[in-house]
Amino acid sequence: MRSSGPAIISHPGPTVSACTERELIDRIRQRLAPPPPWVSVGIGDDAAVVEVERNRLEVLSVDAVVEGVHFDRSLSPAAAIGHRALAVNLSDLAAMGATPRLALLSMALPGEFPLADFDGIADGVAALAAATSTHVVGGNLTRTPGPLTIEITVVGTVKPRRALTRGGAREGDELYVTGTIGAARTGLEILRAAHPTAMHQTHAVYESCVARYQRPEARLRVGVLLARNRVASACVDLSDGLADAVRQIADGSSVGVEIQADLLPVDPGARAWFESRGADPERSALEAGDDYELLFAVRPRLRRRLNAIARLFDVPITRVGVCTAGRGATLLRTDGLVSRAIDLPRGYGHFR
Amino acid sequence: MRSSGPAIISHPGPTVSACTERELIDRIRQRLAPPPPWVSVGIGDDAAVVEVERNRLEVLSVDAVVEGVHFDRSLSPAAAIGHRALAVNLSDLAAMGATPRLALLSMALPGEFPLADFDGIADGVAALAAATSTHVVGGNLTRTPGPLTIEITVVGTVKPRRALTRGGAREGDELYVTGTIGAARTGLEILRAAHPTAMHQTHAVYESCVARYQRPEARLRVGVLLARNRVASACVDLSDGLADAVRQIADGSSVGVEIQADLLPVDPGARAWFESRGADPERSALEAGDDYELLFAVRPRLRRRLNAIARLFDVPITRVGVCTAGRGATLLRTDGLVSRAIDLPRGYGHFR
Repeated sequence: MRSSGPAIISHPGPTVSACTERELIDRIRQRLAPPPPWVSVGIGDDAAVVEVERNRLEVLSVDAVVEGVHFDRSLSPAAAIGHRALAVNLSDLAAMGATPRLALLSMALPGEFPLADFDGIADGVAALAAATSTHVVGGNLTRTPGPLTIEITVVGTVKPRRALTRGGAREGDELYVTGTIGAARTGLEILRAAHPTAMHQTHAVYESCVARYQRPEARLRVGVLLARNRVASACVDLSDGLADAVRQIADGSSVGVEIQADLLPVDPGARAWFESRGADPERSALEAGDDYELLFAVRPRLRRRLNAIARLFDVPITRVGVCTAGRGATLLRTDGLVSRAIDLPRGYGHFR
Repeated sequence: MRSSGPAIISHPGPTVSACTERELIDRIRQRLAPPPPWVSVGIGDDAAVVEVERNRLEVLSVDAVVEGVHFDRSLSPAAAIGHRALAVNLSDLAAMGATPRLALLSMALPGEFPLADFDGIADGVAALAAATSTHVVGGNLTRTPGPLTIEITVVGTVKPRRALTRGGAREGDELYVTGTIGAARTGLEILRAAHPTAMHQTHAVYESCVARYQRPEARLRVGVLLARNRVASACVDLSDGLADAVRQIADGSSVGVEIQADLLPVDPGARAWFESRGADPERSALEAGDDYELLFAVRPRLRRRLNAIARLFDVPITRVGVCTAGRGATLLRTDGLVSRAIDLPRGYGHFR
């Protein structure tokens, strides 16, 4: 009686918390049939890229946000939670250089979830979808005895041979980051510290950090232009922080990376916040997640082409380092006349 | 300071449990921009259908299974849970007449989830994916403080003007159902009743019910042939039971439906089980979910074409009723010489 088999017994063995996310992904991958030729980018990058037919590429990504893990209902209005759930997915498309086309919205709802918040979340998703020409064509609703979970699948398109992946960077390529870093984490910490104090008492420089946390903006146009003009040789988004993103390009492209601490575009509000806490601003910003900026590699000879693109945007694009022949990830710090090279801080090691 | 706004306060207002799933979906839909012309079927059917370019249709669906709501780890081996999570999605594609192409696998994992069960779920997904030529090209892993939640997005293809929807049935169309009904619910009830008694003590007729619950089979080939040969005018799957499926076609096609109780293909194991419990077998089978068979409407003049298709399959295809000019859903029962028409049992009214 093959299918009823033994029911699951509580195993005394290891649990998923003993693994990194990458290790868990590998355990899935090794069980699957080898991908067919029409899968250009499979499991493990920001998104999957499939060639639906000759010269037509589709980019697919899915991301879930879980209450108590990725957001806190007491810290964000419902519309901001909806906005953010879609934005983190659009950021994956941006990192591939893809233009969003459609989305599927799936929610697992606690039974006593307020209808007003349900509407607010839908409002936030709908507004960002409209602003980015992403059409919500379907989804799923289920109840859950657990926390509110919003999961969005996005599908976008990219021209053939234009998709940006983690691989492709070479020794000598320069590394750039869009916008500023550390702001979203600062916004979250401010919200946690200020709560339940009314937010209008907060200093203006912090308000933009709160906005960056609550309503991240996917760098869709930058990503598309970097891909379309073949400027970037590799690209990832900063969902888990710059230090993690740097390592993803290093691993994906089999290169080393050197980041210069004094070049890092630490957000002014974040810098003030980290310093007021006695923390190292550069190191804190490197480890801070949720920024949804892009990190990408550019061959030095394409610097002029990058500058032409950069001028089209209000958002700064900053050179922060270079790809090297070695394999490690190094942070260069200059204190006065003394330069020190230290290992780049690692992201979280265990499955989160 | 638009984006920080007021944090969510516990609302005293209504909760989502006051709404049906359909009402919640409508609340989302009314917030979205009108769908562009390339969306052939949007929110509300088994799956979405989009025309990615002229004469190329894609079918997308997403479904989540939540521990404690859709499955119980003590009643199914991990591989069966993985199988089922993919099968319920493939069933949505089958109901659209689509051929599966790719899938995204997303899991929210409790921290102490056993790695052996994680592997088992991946095994179950991988085996069914391989058997149905569905390629898992990506996904997402996150931890959750709540129950294990597996969410799969599937993408399939269907020829233009061949997609099967809930609309399209007309007065006089006959209604058919694949396979038998009531088996999966019976399997679940047997597992609950037998647990923790060893399953090998169970009668053979019940073993197939347990298998039907644990490893449902999406009717992919039937769905594709019904669509390709333009046999079915409307089609849905039986995820929430035949009574619910009948109402979906009635509502989607603006017709009435009449189901004949004595034609219903109640599974023999289910019939024995329901009768042993003192329950009405037909009524119980109509309300039983999880069968993942197909219900479809066929114009009477296409009956011969349907018979030709039916002969290709081992699975029975049974006529169970007809579409009428009225709007209700009626169950006709014949007791001896007396015929009675009663309202078809309703599915669950409130959001589950």
